Amino acid sequence: MLYIIGLGLGDEKDITVKGLEAVKSCDVLFLESYTSILPRIKKDRLEEFYGKKIEEADRYCVESECEKVILERAKTQCVGFLVVGDPFGATTHTDMVVRAREMNIQVEVIHNASIMNAVGVCGLQLYQFGITVSLVFFTENWKPDSFYDKIKKNRECGLHTLCLLDIKVKEPTEECLLKPHLKKYMPPRFMTINQAIDELLEIEHLRKEGVYNEETLCVGLARVGARDQQVVYGTIKELRELDWGEPLHSLVICAPDKDVHFLEKEHLEFYSVKNFLKRQQEE
Amino acid sequence: MLYIIGLGLGDEKDITVKGLEAVKSCDVLFLESYTSILPRIKKDRLEEFYGKKIEEADRYCVESECEKVILERAKTQCVGFLVVGDPFGATTHTDMVVRAREMNIQVEVIHNASIMNAVGVCGLQLYQFGITVSLVFFTENWKPDSFYDKIKKNRECGLHTLCLLDIKVKEPTEECLLKPHLKKYMPPRFMTINQAIDELLEIEHLRKEGVYNEETLCVGLARVGARDQQVVYGTIKELRELDWGEPLHSLVICAPDKDVHFLEKEHLEFYSVKNFLKRQQEE
Repeated sequence: MLYIIGLGLGDEKDITVKGLEAVKSCDVLFLESYTSILPRIKKDRLEEFYGKKIEEADRYCVESECEKVILERAKTQCVGFLVVGDPFGATTHTDMVVRAREMNIQVEVIHNASIMNAVGVCGLQLYQFGITVSLVFFTENWKPDSFYDKIKKNRECGLHTLCLLDIKVKEPTEECLLKPHLKKYMPPRFMTINQAIDELLEIEHLRKEGVYNEETLCVGLARVGARDQQVVYGTIKELRELDWGEPLHSLVICAPDKDVHFLEKEHLEFYSVKNFLKRQQEE
Repeated sequence: MLYIIGLGLGDEKDITVKGLEAVKSCDVLFLESYTSILPRIKKDRLEEFYGKKIEEADRYCVESECEKVILERAKTQCVGFLVVGDPFGATTHTDMVVRAREMNIQVEVIHNASIMNAVGVCGLQLYQFGITVSLVFFTENWKPDSFYDKIKKNRECGLHTLCLLDIKVKEPTEECLLKPHLKKYMPPRFMTINQAIDELLEIEHLRKEGVYNEETLCVGLARVGARDQQVVYGTIKELRELDWGEPLHSLVICAPDKDVHFLEKEHLEFYSVKNFLKRQQEE
């Protein structure tokens, strides 16, 4: 038996009651630890909450050793595979489901919130989002800009764009790429909204197609679903100046002004930079 | 204090641990009962699970009397507003949040799964969905077809379309429209995938722009998140012939074949009509 269990977005208590019951019934637990690990949903915190040991499943384990390490055990034992957010949210684990079913393993999926729906908290209608894009950390020689064309298309269609920002967890060091048995990893990195904006502007500066500029209206979202979540609406320039605090960050590039519904605008206003700074002062 | 609590998609146990703790701490509970009520998340079942009384909040209560009935109480008491799915999923309750905050009421939102992310279970990447459309029950004189242009645009852009199907709960009878104090309601109606397909084809037949036809590939999803969920991939014609059982139903119109990623296809294959019928025979 294989349970694939979404953990939601905030902390250890965002698991569903059904999910927690499944966890309690499991003989073995794995935590998917490379696509969307959250600072407040960490292994030790979950272990304490569940009263059970958890094994970390890194990219290599999930993509290359899934059958041997996870699925073979699910043939005879009850295995729980824990995923931050929803198992089929931003990153899908459909592959594991398909492979498990081919091996005649019973699979149950326990859904939860993901950034793909929780982003609605900012007041923009989920209906009005186009294709979602991912921004990855640029290196000196590698600056993938496929997001640019997608944002362009979305804005042409009058749609908002959710930008998911890069997470680098358990990335092998250069030394380790040559000698994998060393298992040395770089410290985890989470792209900030500020970094994302720099990349966006860098590509606009290169491509010059006028898809967005410093005055384009955006919504920054940090730690969605947590008590201290931070949602701020303003121009790219304004949002770049803010301190967004701990990860995870996401960014929404709004549709062109004429395509934003007046009700959306009313809701966004609550999150405006001006109101945000006012609330900060009051606290 | 106002808690807005997502209940998820399956049954009473799809609430999160955090959501359940909030429920237990509330003096008053309301269940939003007009946008997305689910057969397995009904008032009596929730009341039994929580050991608490729940008041139903119909459209009139939420849209017109929200301040008086819900928010005024939240000034002095701890009020829980329960929403099937996510509070900001398919239907957003942002309005209530904004109004509550204007009244200086502390608001906490507890997210959960919604069809907007759980649809990923079918194997299509959430990244590759365009704008979401809603299909409403046609009447003899009212056949709103705005979905047609949206599906057209999505398919032109190589994107999938999630179609949300109409729910009519607590719809006043004609008699009651004239005399609202009667409070007589029509029996609840949930659009089936079969009905949705009929509407889609009816509009294609009228508009004749070749957006889709009987051979267009789609995924039907019934009761997503529940143990007996039914996910089947096939042509419009094939899906129309199936019995989808209890509500809620949703339908995805896939992007044109050339735009569907081979990994998506591999996953969809598992849900093909052929495999679905085979699994049914085996059971």
